[in-house]
Amino acid sequence: MTVQSIDGPARPVTVLGLGRMGTALAGALLAAGHPTTVWNRDPARVAAPVARGAVAADTVGDAILASPLVLVTVTDYRAVHEVLGASAASLTGRTVVNLATGTPEEVRAVAERVAAAGADYLDGAMMALPQTVATPEAFFLYSGSRHAFDAHRTTLDVLATSHFLDRDPAVAELWDLALLGSGYAVLAGFLHSLALLHTAQVPPTAFVPLVTRWLHGMLAFMPELAEEVEFRSYGAGVSPVALNRVAVGNLVRTSTLRGVDAEVHAPLRALLDRRTADGHGTDSFASLFELLKPVRSG
Amino acid sequence: MTVQSIDGPARPVTVLGLGRMGTALAGALLAAGHPTTVWNRDPARVAAPVARGAVAADTVGDAILASPLVLVTVTDYRAVHEVLGASAASLTGRTVVNLATGTPEEVRAVAERVAAAGADYLDGAMMALPQTVATPEAFFLYSGSRHAFDAHRTTLDVLATSHFLDRDPAVAELWDLALLGSGYAVLAGFLHSLALLHTAQVPPTAFVPLVTRWLHGMLAFMPELAEEVEFRSYGAGVSPVALNRVAVGNLVRTSTLRGVDAEVHAPLRALLDRRTADGHGTDSFASLFELLKPVRSG
Ligand SMILES: NC(=O)c1ccc[n+]([C@@H]2O[C@H](COP(=O)([O-])OP(=O)(O)OC[C@H]3O[C@@H](n4cnc5c(N)ncnc54)[C@H](OP(=O)(O)O)[C@@H]3O)[C@@H](O)[C@H]2O)c1
Ligand SMILES: NC(=O)c1ccc[n+]([C@@H]2O[C@H](COP(=O)([O-])OP(=O)(O)OC[C@H]3O[C@@H](n4cnc5c(N)ncnc54)[C@H](OP(=O)(O)O)[C@@H]3O)[C@@H](O)[C@H]2O)c1
Repeated sequence: MTVQSIDGPARPVTVLGLGRMGTALAGALLAAGHPTTVWNRDPARVAAPVARGAVAADTVGDAILASPLVLVTVTDYRAVHEVLGASAASLTGRTVVNLATGTPEEVRAVAERVAAAGADYLDGAMMALPQTVATPEAFFLYSGSRHAFDAHRTTLDVLATSHFLDRDPAVAELWDLALLGSGYAVLAGFLHSLALLHTAQVPPTAFVPLVTRWLHGMLAFMPELAEEVEFRSYGAGVSPVALNRVAVGNLVRTSTLRGVDAEVHAPLRALLDRRTADGHGTDSFASLFELLKPVRSG
Repeated sequence: MTVQSIDGPARPVTVLGLGRMGTALAGALLAAGHPTTVWNRDPARVAAPVARGAVAADTVGDAILASPLVLVTVTDYRAVHEVLGASAASLTGRTVVNLATGTPEEVRAVAERVAAAGADYLDGAMMALPQTVATPEAFFLYSGSRHAFDAHRTTLDVLATSHFLDRDPAVAELWDLALLGSGYAVLAGFLHSLALLHTAQVPPTAFVPLVTRWLHGMLAFMPELAEEVEFRSYGAGVSPVALNRVAVGNLVRTSTLRGVDAEVHAPLRALLDRRTADGHGTDSFASLFELLKPVRSG
């Protein structure tokens, strides 16, 4: 009889849901030598992981019973409820890692259902694409049971770098939205810039080297901005609200003059206007945080 | 008598305007061995460059006559007109590099005034802060006289890496706005994310490592996005409009539920809504460019 370390590479894992991400996760687990059990609503999708060595379970319940660690990778939280609801009994003593994307507000009901069934709950957010799973590019966020995270971390690290954020299970989804939001802002701003340059026939690919260079500078500026917000120290320094208001005003006006939709930047201009009208024109740009955060919060 | 290479390091330069940037530029030129003549409206400001070896001119006209290359670093284009208007006669045969920030629409009048005075005109945009002048972080954009750029490039490279963009002098200001706009979008999105995380008491500095990691991924994605726009090839791939619409909807809804101002992301949601309603829900995210660019343009 062999003794297996609790953190050893060969612990059994179950994957419920074999869409693009579930298939990639099962593939990574199999490549790392984990006995892997899979289930998918449409049974046709089990063929690929089975060809790579996975065991297909006939029912969700059988799949859950096969492993102490159960990853759920279905479309959304509604699907999570459907999958887990049919097999609550088998959950006792397992760890459920819910990797579906949802909102923080949706987390509580799933977490309670899993806890009521006697299982540990981890909520996860996959900052990855199917093709980046198990590469250095991917990172996954977790919140919920710290104990479950510690117990399974080595296995989870097979999928992506793992970050445990908070015992409140809703926090991983909140970070997911915060990261997505920052990313969307980058891409929306970039597309607007391409449209502005289009008015002078600048080809989009010609803009890429300088804009990525410029934006690397913005990312390098984030630690300073974060500190200003954290300590509410909005001494103006080189970038006061009033100066930025002029620049964003030029940007909106020039866009509009050239027929480019300026809506993407209009909210920032409105924030700079309000902050100036409030008498904070000499505060730093970071002070706009005060207009974004909830009114009642500290 | 010594023979001096046309590209040698010691060519005389004049700097009109010794604010934060003008003072930094004069300092960089002096450090590189250029005979440097300076002028400032408020004469008190010439003391610092003079202490480092600059020659102070009594009038704008004298300053312009002192060097074939004249850098103008005043607040805005109105100030540029005031400075150059008083001394048109002395401009003949010079190269004027206007480094003030303005809009593309403001460029033409200055360019025409300079040309009428018999001088070459370069419009410049300084992607730098006073403290990054003459460091690898800084880059300056130029448009206008290609001949003037080529003739003075070695001198201009003392200030920052130089990029010549177009013979249309307005183009440097357009790129400036496009870069600033992309940068503002990054910072506005970041502040919104901090406000969202604030609702779960996440300290801003804790967010920085993961958001910068995530956004480096977004920057790495820009060449692909730029190609899609350049060739109008919006095959959906992994990121169709409809999927992003759901994610941005979650972001806006969650923000609002938590009392966080969601206006920063509302325009993107509206664009995704419109693109979906137009029947382009399966096109890629990059296809939003079609809604941003001027309606009449190709
Ligand atoms: N794709 C990405 O790049 C990516 C990146 C990060 C996070 N995510 C998140 O990961 C999750 C999965 O994404 P994906 O791209 O893998 O999705 P996908 O390719 O569309 O696959 C969806 C999976 O969910 C299953 N499913 C849907 N509704 C179900 C239900 N009611 N009952 C049982 N199973 C159901 C589907 O089963 P059938 O085969 O039977 O339809 C399929 O296995 C989503 O929450 C997504 O937001 C995706
Ligand atoms: N600071 C930055 O980080 C930065 C970065 C990139 C680009 N820029 C751009 O560079 C330009 C200069 O910025 P700065 O930061 O150096 O400005 P600044 O420190 O405020 O200095 C402004 C300069 O303009 C002069 N000036 C203003 N109005 C004038 C007038 N009507 N006639 C003559 N001189 C006048 C001032 O002269 P007095 O001393 O007599 O008032 C002073 O020398 C601006 O267009 C700015 O947008 C600045």
